[in-house]
Amino acid sequence: MLGSTHGTLTTDLRARVVACGQQTGAAVHGSTAAEGDLDVSGRPLYAPVPDLDRLFRPEAVAVVGASDSDGRPGTGITRQLIAWAERVGARLHPVHPTRTAVFGLPCVPSVTALPEPVDLAVLLVGDPLPVIGELGQAKARFAVAFASGFAETGAAGADAQRRLTAAVERSGLRLLGPNTNLNAFERFRDDLEGPAIALITQSGHQGRPVFTLQELGVRLSHWAPTGNEADLETADFIRYFAERPEVGAIACYIEGIKDGRSFLLAADRAARNRVPVVAVKVGRTEAGARTAASHTGRLTGADGVVDAAMRQYGVIRVDGLDELQDTAALLARARRPTADGVAVYSISGGTGAHFADLASAAGLRLPELSAACRTALHQWIPEYLNVANPVDSGGHPVGDWRGRKIIDAILADPAVGVLVCPITGPFPPMSDRLAQDLVDAAETTDKPVCVVWGSPVGTEEAYRTTLLGSSRVATFRTFGNCVTAVRAYLGHHRFTTGYRSPFDEAPRTLSPSFRKAQALLRPGHRLSEHGAKQLLRAYGIRVPREQLVTSAAAAVRAAGLVGYPVVMKASAPQLAHKTELGLVRIGLTSASQVRDTYRELTDIARYEGVGLDGVLVCQMVERGVEMVVGVAQDELFGPTVTVGLGGVLVEVLRDVAVRVPPFGEDEARSMLAELRGSALLDGVRGGPPVDVDALVEVVLRVQRMALELGAQLSELDINPLMVLPRGQGAVALDALAVCR
Amino acid sequence: MLGSTHGTLTTDLRARVVACGQQTGAAVHGSTAAEGDLDVSGRPLYAPVPDLDRLFRPEAVAVVGASDSDGRPGTGITRQLIAWAERVGARLHPVHPTRTAVFGLPCVPSVTALPEPVDLAVLLVGDPLPVIGELGQAKARFAVAFASGFAETGAAGADAQRRLTAAVERSGLRLLGPNTNLNAFERFRDDLEGPAIALITQSGHQGRPVFTLQELGVRLSHWAPTGNEADLETADFIRYFAERPEVGAIACYIEGIKDGRSFLLAADRAARNRVPVVAVKVGRTEAGARTAASHTGRLTGADGVVDAAMRQYGVIRVDGLDELQDTAALLARARRPTADGVAVYSISGGTGAHFADLASAAGLRLPELSAACRTALHQWIPEYLNVANPVDSGGHPVGDWRGRKIIDAILADPAVGVLVCPITGPFPPMSDRLAQDLVDAAETTDKPVCVVWGSPVGTEEAYRTTLLGSSRVATFRTFGNCVTAVRAYLGHHRFTTGYRSPFDEAPRTLSPSFRKAQALLRPGHRLSEHGAKQLLRAYGIRVPREQLVTSAAAAVRAAGLVGYPVVMKASAPQLAHKTELGLVRIGLTSASQVRDTYRELTDIARYEGVGLDGVLVCQMVERGVEMVVGVAQDELFGPTVTVGLGGVLVEVLRDVAVRVPPFGEDEARSMLAELRGSALLDGVRGGPPVDVDALVEVVLRVQRMALELGAQLSELDINPLMVLPRGQGAVALDALAVCR
Repeated sequence: MLGSTHGTLTTDLRARVVACGQQTGAAVHGSTAAEGDLDVSGRPLYAPVPDLDRLFRPEAVAVVGASDSDGRPGTGITRQLIAWAERVGARLHPVHPTRTAVFGLPCVPSVTALPEPVDLAVLLVGDPLPVIGELGQAKARFAVAFASGFAETGAAGADAQRRLTAAVERSGLRLLGPNTNLNAFERFRDDLEGPAIALITQSGHQGRPVFTLQELGVRLSHWAPTGNEADLETADFIRYFAERPEVGAIACYIEGIKDGRSFLLAADRAARNRVPVVAVKVGRTEAGARTAASHTGRLTGADGVVDAAMRQYGVIRVDGLDELQDTAALLARARRPTADGVAVYSISGGTGAHFADLASAAGLRLPELSAACRTALHQWIPEYLNVANPVDSGGHPVGDWRGRKIIDAILADPAVGVLVCPITGPFPPMSDRLAQDLVDAAETTDKPVCVVWGSPVGTEEAYRTTLLGSSRVATFRTFGNCVTAVRAYLGHHRFTTGYRSPFDEAPRTLSPSFRKAQALLRPGHRLSEHGAKQLLRAYGIRVPREQLVTSAAAAVRAAGLVGYPVVMKASAPQLAHKTELGLVRIGLTSASQVRDTYRELTDIARYEGVGLDGVLVCQMVERGVEMVVGVAQDELFGPTVTVGLGGVLVEVLRDVAVRVPPFGEDEARSMLAELRGSALLDGVRGGPPVDVDALVEVVLRVQRMALELGAQLSELDINPLMVLPRGQGAVALDALAVCR
Repeated sequence: MLGSTHGTLTTDLRARVVACGQQTGAAVHGSTAAEGDLDVSGRPLYAPVPDLDRLFRPEAVAVVGASDSDGRPGTGITRQLIAWAERVGARLHPVHPTRTAVFGLPCVPSVTALPEPVDLAVLLVGDPLPVIGELGQAKARFAVAFASGFAETGAAGADAQRRLTAAVERSGLRLLGPNTNLNAFERFRDDLEGPAIALITQSGHQGRPVFTLQELGVRLSHWAPTGNEADLETADFIRYFAERPEVGAIACYIEGIKDGRSFLLAADRAARNRVPVVAVKVGRTEAGARTAASHTGRLTGADGVVDAAMRQYGVIRVDGLDELQDTAALLARARRPTADGVAVYSISGGTGAHFADLASAAGLRLPELSAACRTALHQWIPEYLNVANPVDSGGHPVGDWRGRKIIDAILADPAVGVLVCPITGPFPPMSDRLAQDLVDAAETTDKPVCVVWGSPVGTEEAYRTTLLGSSRVATFRTFGNCVTAVRAYLGHHRFTTGYRSPFDEAPRTLSPSFRKAQALLRPGHRLSEHGAKQLLRAYGIRVPREQLVTSAAAAVRAAGLVGYPVVMKASAPQLAHKTELGLVRIGLTSASQVRDTYRELTDIARYEGVGLDGVLVCQMVERGVEMVVGVAQDELFGPTVTVGLGGVLVEVLRDVAVRVPPFGEDEARSMLAELRGSALLDGVRGGPPVDVDALVEVVLRVQRMALELGAQLSELDINPLMVLPRGQGAVALDALAVCR
């Protein structure tokens, strides 16, 4: 990777970067985005919070298609809705064309005949489309459509859903569904304390375990079963829940994100409000359907982009519903941490060591407890046992008054932000009292107290009554889920501390580069290397001194101007695999070599049937680290920016990081830290560290280009971008660009 | 990585490899190892199976230190032992110096006064040492020592433990403990059916959850709480359990492995017998205490070696006790698979898709069900639902007779080896019948039927009674653990099918290379590059043509013999960082360059204070892929062999694979497949594939060297090993060797 010292650099990139600073990068604005604001890609920078109060707590409800006939599918649902309306104090109006009463309630023939404007209309009819317009006229605010047979069934269903969406837009009401169910109107326990989980699921069935957490004492405030999301989508509910004071965390089960920008704006709002969003997003195995011209497009599958986008906005992605439950439950209940240290306390040295091992391997910090704390602990714990962290009580002290003292002493250590007590096996003489002491201690502190109840049985009194009866203790069943949740908890607060929204800082106006760049695009074509490099130059990205020539004599003249040694490359719009075809020659040191090489390259091109637009004579730049920087288009999130180890190893190592614009300089730096081979940038085997600032600047300039050119630029690959020693900049040695 | 074409190769490595084939590599023997057989490193190739029947099922038991006084710690234990002895029909003899009866049983003053030779003596005394000799004379077969205060407490305790071990060896009995407990003599349920889990734990507390599985209907046959392993160790119990017909799987909780070879011989026996071993091994965060001279030693921490060793012998390593339980329970119960396909069946499309996503991401294969099977399923499942795999029943059919038909049809598909049915939320009208149908179907097939009961509550009838009541269905609580267990199940059977023990094929006699190599070692020193390369040559590993010279004139003569262009390097025993010091020069093409370079290198060395043993003039070899091959010493497993991406990137990418010798050619090839950058060996950007056979041969020759030289060779690093295009061999361009 570190080449010889042949290449000499004559321009000062750093100076240019400084000079261009005002026109590039993302961090040029900084005002809070407001309704109607668009970024330079034409996408919204702000999404309003929908008022969904009357969807979840309606005062007047219509049930369209209500039934009380035995055996009709709507009958059971009508019965449930009537019971629910009674419970929440809502007025319920059955609607049916031929009935005058349903379950004793007066029934009207159509929504136009409703006695009052309703907050919510539950549509049990097979085709909700005709009702939507009438509901709009009747000033209904929300509708829920149960019918299936829409986008989930194929093309015809998708057409029907588009018609439904259009009707909803005309009507002025908001629609939940179609293909949804009664989950929003289930019976929620109102006797549970503390901040609640708000639940959003695209499949009702998959939300059931989180909802059932109420049976284990975890409070739930809402359940939004979004179904096909013809109108209201997951993002709308995230924004709404992020503003509700009773919501401590938002748990999502997502099968498909409806609109990438809308989702990120919702996650951004939650991050601003410091409300954690925990999500299962199905699709780990999605490879993404991409054309294969660029490296960067292939290297990051569609799911990798989802992963990155979620991390950019602090959404905590988990795989299993059990992790969703456990992580959301801890995050909903726990207050902001006062320290990032985790203390592990157990009645067995083996248990503590095992948990500490898994926690450390997951990146949690287990600080040594302070001398004062250790001295205090040894009042109650024999000297030969370890109390530095993990704390091993040896068992006996937990059976008497010392147990509580130990817990309080650990919690009092300022380095401790979270206490975890794994109880592997129930042993009532000790574990019953330990559980009670933990519950009591948790009432006296803002620090989260986590317990792992390791018995697979789960019917023990200490577990079901004592631990689950506490709204302050977070109880887990496995070490793994406890580690996952604690890491998410500390990570979330680290993320939201000082969070600055990228949307506030996103560029809103086109840069002067845009006009130059647009003139270089050739819609529907792939640019030649020379063309692609001109595009880079338009955005202030340095390329080698080079000339495109069409004769051997011109090549010699160009070499003289560029300066020996030179590199020569055949140039053609559709030319891939130049190196493999022998169409790249490096280290040419004389006019005769240049002349001969020109002939050889054109001969090969003729033989291979490649129509050249000329031969590039380029400055030779060698002493640096080869990186790749690229742009690909994601179906959901639009243009994405990738950076990774470049050169011939890019395909072999697939060591890349991706981000969804807009993002700022910090995020660009974090991309580099994410690379497995990031140490390469610090210098290899005594070599100098490379110009990371210049690399970051290239990433930000490429982002600017991606935002401004939008879909016009299908793909861009700078490979290699030669990043030179610190202070010397970065040079794009080769580039590939495909226009749409 | 792919250099220019300067270097020319004149010797035919392939021919040499073939010629030397009989003396290198591991696969030269092939007879089954027997008691007393040693490999060339002097370590055993065979370990006998201890007869532990009378430890677990003794007919006569002595309790030394028995007590029935209230408040004495031994009293409770004595009471438990008496109850246990009654239950299992053993004769129990209390031993106490001053009592004549304990709990009504006649008590003898010492073990020499016992009325009969006992199978087992339980030692409740504070210092078991004095009793051991007497027990040996009294022909006791086993002792269990409860006392603590041995190796777990520090150096003095470790001394006491060594004395105890020595006494046990003299006595002829076998000891369990010290620092253990009553776990082996707990009450095991004898009403459960099917193959059982045998449990081995170093910490009793950490074994409790697995033991408690009996409350969920999983059969356990044994629990060996090994404590400090002064005598009997985990490996002894693995060998014993692997021979017991009632044992379906062995579950281990390991804090430290007592002896690496002994552990691997035990795992080898289990693999031969196709008995799965599932283990938690604490120490994920162990970095390993290694000196820093070699790359390979630093790149693989001690835990990485444990990981590799376990995988070599098919031990399934898991992190959490919940994974240990779930994986062991499935593996104990399930018969050998008839296919490696996993079918997923659920009553909700979302649930099936979610599970399928996680399963596929974990590498499980979900084959499309056959046309015949799909046709059959559509008799009972509406046409618009997906039945290809995952199978979505849509819900309703599971409520009646069709439910069982669906399950049977899926199980009948020959591509299906495992059926997984995730039941996310309990909905009694459907899930009760579904659970019963699954239990009934499981009785009729040898294919494992796995159910995930997703409700976090876990008190539902269908779960606790129907599913847990079946000895054929494996019931999980999380998608994650089900995926882990199914992957382990299929992986274990893939591994054991046609398993050939590396111990049968390990070299037992020194090769002719050994004498040559030993003459080159310099105990306590680091060899010069030239010395290290001679060591490689002794084992038939190709190095460039090179000469060590001590004058400029000799350098020029050497260059003429070696052939231009040449590489020149300063050579000194303790010289590291040659490149950084400017002590390596490549591509020298003339006598004058060689002469000048000689002077420059010796000048730099003088300036840096490096005492050279000369300057190496080497053949230049460039066109290949740079790899690293090395040897490091592991505290537990002795010499280990590492291979990885080499050159300047070795530290940056840390892309290495490690194995514990002895291993065969297949394992050497699997090391290469394990590398993230393995595609490099297939050729980069149209370059030719490299000579993988030659690389494998170098790994095997290095293994042979590591086994023969043993601890005499502290470290070896071949970096880079230039692997040339296919058919052209591999050349060690630089090497580092440290002798002990």
